[in-house]
Amino acid sequence: MSTLKQLGIGMLGYAFMGKSHSHAWKSIPTFIWPPPAVPKLIVIFGRHEDRVREAMIRYGYKKYVTDWRKVVRDPEVDIVDNGLPNHLHKDPTIEAIEQGKHVVCEKPLGRNAQEAKEIYEAAKRSSVKTMVAFNYRFVPAVMLAKKIIDEGLLGKIYHFRARYLQDWIVDPNFPLVWRLQKEYAGSGPLGDLGSHIIDLARYLIGEPSAVSALTKTFIDERPLPDDPTKKGKVTVEDTFEAAIEFENGAMGTLEASRFATGRKNFNNFEINGEKGSIEFNLERLNELRVYLKEPDERKYLEGWRTILVTEKIHPYIKFYWPPGHIIGWEHTFINELAHFLDAIVNDKDVAPQGATMEDGYKNNVICDAIIESAEKGKKVLIKY
Amino acid sequence: MSTLKQLGIGMLGYAFMGKSHSHAWKSIPTFIWPPPAVPKLIVIFGRHEDRVREAMIRYGYKKYVTDWRKVVRDPEVDIVDNGLPNHLHKDPTIEAIEQGKHVVCEKPLGRNAQEAKEIYEAAKRSSVKTMVAFNYRFVPAVMLAKKIIDEGLLGKIYHFRARYLQDWIVDPNFPLVWRLQKEYAGSGPLGDLGSHIIDLARYLIGEPSAVSALTKTFIDERPLPDDPTKKGKVTVEDTFEAAIEFENGAMGTLEASRFATGRKNFNNFEINGEKGSIEFNLERLNELRVYLKEPDERKYLEGWRTILVTEKIHPYIKFYWPPGHIIGWEHTFINELAHFLDAIVNDKDVAPQGATMEDGYKNNVICDAIIESAEKGKKVLIKY
Amino acid sequence: MSTLKQLGIGMLGYAFMGKSHSHAWKSIPTFIWPPPAVPKLIVIFGRHEDRVREAMIRYGYKKYVTDWRKVVRDPEVDIVDNGLPNHLHKDPTIEAIEQGKHVVCEKPLGRNAQEAKEIYEAAKRSSVKTMVAFNYRFVPAVMLAKKIIDEGLLGKIYHFRARYLQDWIVDPNFPLVWRLQKEYAGSGPLGDLGSHIIDLARYLIGEPSAVSALTKTFIDERPLPDDPTKKGKVTVEDTFEAAIEFENGAMGTLEASRFATGRKNFNNFEINGEKGSIEFNLERLNELRVYLKEPDERKYLEGWRTILVTEKIHPYIKFYWPPGHIIGWEHTFINELAHFLDAIVNDKDVAPQGATMEDGYKNNVICDAIIESAEKGKKVLIKY
Amino acid sequence: MSTLKQLGIGMLGYAFMGKSHSHAWKSIPTFIWPPPAVPKLIVIFGRHEDRVREAMIRYGYKKYVTDWRKVVRDPEVDIVDNGLPNHLHKDPTIEAIEQGKHVVCEKPLGRNAQEAKEIYEAAKRSSVKTMVAFNYRFVPAVMLAKKIIDEGLLGKIYHFRARYLQDWIVDPNFPLVWRLQKEYAGSGPLGDLGSHIIDLARYLIGEPSAVSALTKTFIDERPLPDDPTKKGKVTVEDTFEAAIEFENGAMGTLEASRFATGRKNFNNFEINGEKGSIEFNLERLNELRVYLKEPDERKYLEGWRTILVTEKIHPYIKFYWPPGHIIGWEHTFINELAHFLDAIVNDKDVAPQGATMEDGYKNNVICDAIIESAEKGKKVLIKY
Repeated sequence: MSTLKQLGIGMLGYAFMGKSHSHAWKSIPTFIWPPPAVPKLIVIFGRHEDRVREAMIRYGYKKYVTDWRKVVRDPEVDIVDNGLPNHLHKDPTIEAIEQGKHVVCEKPLGRNAQEAKEIYEAAKRSSVKTMVAFNYRFVPAVMLAKKIIDEGLLGKIYHFRARYLQDWIVDPNFPLVWRLQKEYAGSGPLGDLGSHIIDLARYLIGEPSAVSALTKTFIDERPLPDDPTKKGKVTVEDTFEAAIEFENGAMGTLEASRFATGRKNFNNFEINGEKGSIEFNLERLNELRVYLKEPDERKYLEGWRTILVTEKIHPYIKFYWPPGHIIGWEHTFINELAHFLDAIVNDKDVAPQGATMEDGYKNNVICDAIIESAEKGKKVLIKY
Repeated sequence: MSTLKQLGIGMLGYAFMGKSHSHAWKSIPTFIWPPPAVPKLIVIFGRHEDRVREAMIRYGYKKYVTDWRKVVRDPEVDIVDNGLPNHLHKDPTIEAIEQGKHVVCEKPLGRNAQEAKEIYEAAKRSSVKTMVAFNYRFVPAVMLAKKIIDEGLLGKIYHFRARYLQDWIVDPNFPLVWRLQKEYAGSGPLGDLGSHIIDLARYLIGEPSAVSALTKTFIDERPLPDDPTKKGKVTVEDTFEAAIEFENGAMGTLEASRFATGRKNFNNFEINGEKGSIEFNLERLNELRVYLKEPDERKYLEGWRTILVTEKIHPYIKFYWPPGHIIGWEHTFINELAHFLDAIVNDKDVAPQGATMEDGYKNNVICDAIIESAEKGKKVLIKY
Repeated sequence: MSTLKQLGIGMLGYAFMGKSHSHAWKSIPTFIWPPPAVPKLIVIFGRHEDRVREAMIRYGYKKYVTDWRKVVRDPEVDIVDNGLPNHLHKDPTIEAIEQGKHVVCEKPLGRNAQEAKEIYEAAKRSSVKTMVAFNYRFVPAVMLAKKIIDEGLLGKIYHFRARYLQDWIVDPNFPLVWRLQKEYAGSGPLGDLGSHIIDLARYLIGEPSAVSALTKTFIDERPLPDDPTKKGKVTVEDTFEAAIEFENGAMGTLEASRFATGRKNFNNFEINGEKGSIEFNLERLNELRVYLKEPDERKYLEGWRTILVTEKIHPYIKFYWPPGHIIGWEHTFINELAHFLDAIVNDKDVAPQGATMEDGYKNNVICDAIIESAEKGKKVLIKY
Repeated sequence: MSTLKQLGIGMLGYAFMGKSHSHAWKSIPTFIWPPPAVPKLIVIFGRHEDRVREAMIRYGYKKYVTDWRKVVRDPEVDIVDNGLPNHLHKDPTIEAIEQGKHVVCEKPLGRNAQEAKEIYEAAKRSSVKTMVAFNYRFVPAVMLAKKIIDEGLLGKIYHFRARYLQDWIVDPNFPLVWRLQKEYAGSGPLGDLGSHIIDLARYLIGEPSAVSALTKTFIDERPLPDDPTKKGKVTVEDTFEAAIEFENGAMGTLEASRFATGRKNFNNFEINGEKGSIEFNLERLNELRVYLKEPDERKYLEGWRTILVTEKIHPYIKFYWPPGHIIGWEHTFINELAHFLDAIVNDKDVAPQGATMEDGYKNNVICDAIIESAEKGKKVLIKY
């Protein structure tokens, strides 16, 4: 182990993302062997001292702080992992970059394109490695989809349609959490869920050129989390629905909602090309559905095949289990953060597998265009 | 049998629709017993004498003609069934109505709203029964969906999303058939496939209030059917993509394409309500997928259930086979035409189960709005 | 039509099989064009005069009788179609053969191997065409499975496992119908359902060599159909469970039950070969699931493909509808009876596509061996 | 953390089971909070020094040894985790028990019932906690199945059918690994895979009373792992097929094979009761398929529901992620070992959730009965 480089991790946030990222950092050496470097869990930040102290113990950090500036300035920290809410993406990320830390930041990069642009420009000015945590690029099945497309097995692409559906706020008494307030979140399911499918569209198909969209807030007011007898205003959309066209001529729809009863984490896309098609659903993330035209003499065998993406030859699977022993949602982070370690240690580009700050910025531009299209009732061209 | 009323059928067209409608008329007494009336297959019309003569023999008509006017004026004919291409919907349908025949006409009713309006007004002036053949209203699973919605099991509806996908013109050498020419078809997959999902949206959810749409023609020129060495211009869209909102506040997407490789007859809709959701796919038309919230003490049992819609208690199934013995696509016509017979013999309304000429007209209005939205790059309000 | 041969049909039975066979005879010219011959529906037999008269009208027969001997001796009848309960397979079938009629008889051929042997020997003595109505050989997806196996795409076969599950007698108050009485049925789900999967095993894989089986009657007594206040004894098994080996070395399980709640008509088989596998489920009879090993360089694409067996190149589909427009359970009879017509008119062998009387006899031998194995608690070798 | 008890772990084996168990021990505090105790990874044993040293580093053990006796006698070790091949279950497990260590041992407990009995008796003589690692009892979906059955939602059980299918030795050139040699493994897929479905049968349904089985070795000789130019004899079965009956009257089939091309880890069971049914497939371990009869007025809603077992109310899920964020195969071990920690720390019974040494012994008895039935060609009664 003396020959294994170690890198110190400073984690911002201990909740959903704090837990998933911390588990990933810890699990890297178990699975990714030899690892590019062994992550050392140095410090974790959170606002609530009791909770961040508990998180430190659970996840195995050396220490905790309640001021994020102490993380980004900590000399033991090589990598800052920003898992904070959206309104705390910009400042800590930029300051960490300026402190010479490598930074991985959760998505969406900014609450809007302007914020994202500032982060992107800070990254451009620096030589540290930076990445936006669009972790679904690291689902083995999604990487297999990318490979199939890049090899030309689908031919010219005609359609990309995606919808990211959840159902956790259908109840009108669900409280006004930060994700429902523009001040903190920037937007609703658009930035939270839509940014993922926009990223997958760009990763898999290419740049969008125009959108025509509608948005809607179904429930205007909700109980305040701290005082449910009072209500506050929902200031983000509850759904967006968009028609989209791509620079390469492909056409499709994009949609996200938290009002799709029965859909729990239904990030579902379908791609149709002249020679084949692909479908994916995050709720069955170990599977990829693929249709490939066969030569004439085998045409009677054409069908949608369900590839169980658990073979050693599939992306990242050699690090895990034998065929049919499926991985879970959390493994996307193990793959992603190992990729980031590799970029840092071996001075490789984060792109094209990982999402760069430029990707994060462009993603925000598209989100803004969707909002603008809905507000103005007209088609909006995408311009970076 | 002496007590069974007989009604004479005059069929316009012998191809795809001629075959499916004729089989349905013939099969009604076998399945729907006692039938409202026994259809007598009198006469079939087609332009090509050899083919229409063969059709007469195969399907069991008494005679054939090569002039449609002879059908609509035939005194033995009580019901005219118009299965001709779209440009031949208006004149024969109106003349049949004016001759006092009951008329069922294939969809889309007109090549555009103006044509449809003329037919609709002719029907209003007359006392004959008229119906537009939106046969997917008569899929037992779709009728079950309607029942579930009407009973309030889904609660308030938040989303309707539908896509009707096929793949039969992906090959650029597929010829320039009438369905690809605006003169004959009016539009491309919009009128052919999109009109079906628009009808299902109206049947199941209610009236749309606005659309924001994009369209595209992927392949501009195709070989002429009669001389493949020459090419002609494709004058309809190859796909449309639309965001839609409904009067009742629901939001969604609509899409149709003939470039979705691997999708053969994928008429797929999903409805999300506050208490449950429904999904349907025409390629598995005996199944309905339904998600229903459970009371708290049974919440651990919530899931998408696949209802095999083949029980005696399901719509129309008592006329067919025991549970699990599935029906096919053609049974939609048996159900639909038996419904029309019932309306005629027992002087009932075709609506709300069947689609009226008014439904056909409104459908064309929405199709026109989608085209207008795409052409102008703006959201268009639906006005009848 | 003058050039089309006509053959007179005499139908025994008007209930479930009477309806499905009559519809098939009537539909042959609509779909199978040109047909080998046009079936003329001459006469239908049933014990209950009111019901058989109604059946005559519904299905379009010229006349009805209440004595089956009048059918098998009717000079207008060329083909006798025996859809009667199992205890009425032997006598009418043998007498029809001896009267020089072609005969198609429902399955199982006999209540036991001895009965089946008598029928088989009568057929051997005659020159008429005979067939046992194992209609699932005529499901297009099953025929595709046969083709795939025969072409060697699966390689050596290691496993065949099948289960035919229904749930219509789970309720202990379901009455003691003829299918639950050995006197009429011969056996329970073994002859009713098991005979189908035994036939598919022989059709697809080859001859079984031995069985080890268990049987059980879950509910011993049931209400009498005519007087539900009294109970009678169930004299057949409610389920059988068998391990099976084949002459070619393949191994598997066979099972049938009417106590599988939620399984409606679940005739489900799976075949595993060294190069691939196949799965089928009658409740989705338009689909075949196929797994095929790929060459090494494409191994990442291996998966179970769902073939939608509705393409023109698929068996019998050219007679029906465009891709994705599915057929129903009843189409198996149209295919089967058209095949029988072809064998008669063109003096072809019924085998190997259709099941011969020899197939019917061997099927009964295997059923008897399963009963014997369960009764004696030992493995039984199959000997014809 | 000072208040958290710590327990020292001694791991036997570093390969497949060594990796999955070590990851589980390490991940317990991250997920299961507060944990019954915090596992301290003390020592890992393996025969090959290079590999076990690497394993020590990867998984985070303090030390490694190449003599298993040093583990079972190590004073820092509280729990011995035996993940060695089957022939090394008995001696190390018994000696660890006798050294006063708590022991969790991989399945099957013995190579045969006699070995298992010796272990079971050693456990009975001791007061340490012992468990057999039948980890599929700890799949949340399987635990949900258990709950549904125990609550009586299925009513009386009529059927249990299970098959555990893999395909990793279809290639005749796959080498003669220890799992194919009776000396090391005891049996083939019977002990490896069949023992899992036998355990699930006993866990979910109850005790089997009799089996009628067949076995077969498809490929008799295989290349030696160390010298592929030579072949050695396969001394275990390649498949078993069994009919089974249960003390409570239920009937079914059991089957395991490594020759089921396309089935990777297909542990699939189906249970049919008078009021409902359940189906499970390990390749989609986050899902449970459940069919429940509805009251008459809701009967039209009956269908197989796919429960996505990722809700907070589902077993163990509260420790992981939000709905729809699926877990993987490895989580079964986290759940299982946390359960064992709880039994140790809080002096609870391992049963009925966990498998005891008695369960392990009874499992081996059933395996032996299956072999005996196949060898003698007769039904064998289960006697413990």
